[in-house]
Amino acid sequence: MASEIDKLLVTVIGRVSNDIRSLAEAPKGYDESDRTGYLEIFTEYGDGLEGIEAGQTIVVLFWLHESSRDILKVHPRGNKENPMRGVFSTRSPVRPNPIGVSELEVLNIEDTRLQVRGLDVLDNTPIIDIKMKI
Amino acid sequence: MASEIDKLLVTVIGRVSNDIRSLAEAPKGYDESDRTGYLEIFTEYGDGLEGIEAGQTIVVLFWLHESSRDILKVHPRGNKENPMRGVFSTRSPVRPNPIGVSELEVLNIEDTRLQVRGLDVLDNTPIIDIKMKI
Repeated sequence: MASEIDKLLVTVIGRVSNDIRSLAEAPKGYDESDRTGYLEIFTEYGDGLEGIEAGQTIVVLFWLHESSRDILKVHPRGNKENPMRGVFSTRSPVRPNPIGVSELEVLNIEDTRLQVRGLDVLDNTPIIDIKMKI
Repeated sequence: MASEIDKLLVTVIGRVSNDIRSLAEAPKGYDESDRTGYLEIFTEYGDGLEGIEAGQTIVVLFWLHESSRDILKVHPRGNKENPMRGVFSTRSPVRPNPIGVSELEVLNIEDTRLQVRGLDVLDNTPIIDIKMKI
C-alpha cells in the first residue's frame, strides 16, 4: 500500500510531576512500577475529569518526548542479549509516534491534580489523554 | 496550573480496511466486537512489524478522525439516560485528542497487512501505533 504524509496535531492536556529524573531509573513498564506521582491536568480540561474517583484504574496516554521516532527495530527492554524485533511487537518508547499507554491506580484527586500509582515515565512528560479502563 | 499551547505532530502509519461504514453500526468497544478486518500498514513501517504473530493480542492506537475534539462532557455510550460525565472518565471517541486504544487478536499476517478481530472503528480510520499487550 502506498505511503502518505498525513500528519495530525496532538494537544498536551497536562504534565507528569514525579521523582523519576532519568530513563535509567524509570521502570520498564507500569506493570513493574509502584512509583507514585501526579498527573497535573491543565485547568481548562478540568470538566473532562468529572467521574474519575480514587480507587479506579485509568488508562493514561503520554507523549514520550525524549524518545527517538526514526527507529523501527530494537533490542527488547534495551538488553542487547535480546534479538532485535520490530518496535510494534514491543512496548519500547522508541516508535514513529512516541505514545506511551499506562494503566494507573488513582490514589487521590484534588481539583485537576490526580495522585496515581504505577508511573513508568519521566517527570514533566506531556499527558495527551485519559480513559477509563475496560 | 497554567495552560500551554504545546502541540505535537502525529504521523499516520496505516489505515483500517473493514466493512464498518457508519458510527451507528460500529461496536461500542473492542470488548464488544467480533468484527474482523485489516490493518493496512504503510510499507515503509514494515520492519516495525517483525515479531508480531498470528494468535497474539496487540494494542492498536487509532486517530478517530470523525470525532469532535472540543467537547469535555458526554452521556456515556451516547445514551441520554446516562448522566453526563467527563470524557476522561469514559471511553467516548469524543476527547481533546481523539485517540482510540483497542486490543485486537491477530488472525493472519501477509506482508504489512494484518487481519485482526475485535475492530470497533470505521473503515479508513488512521492507525498511529501498535504495541504488544502486557
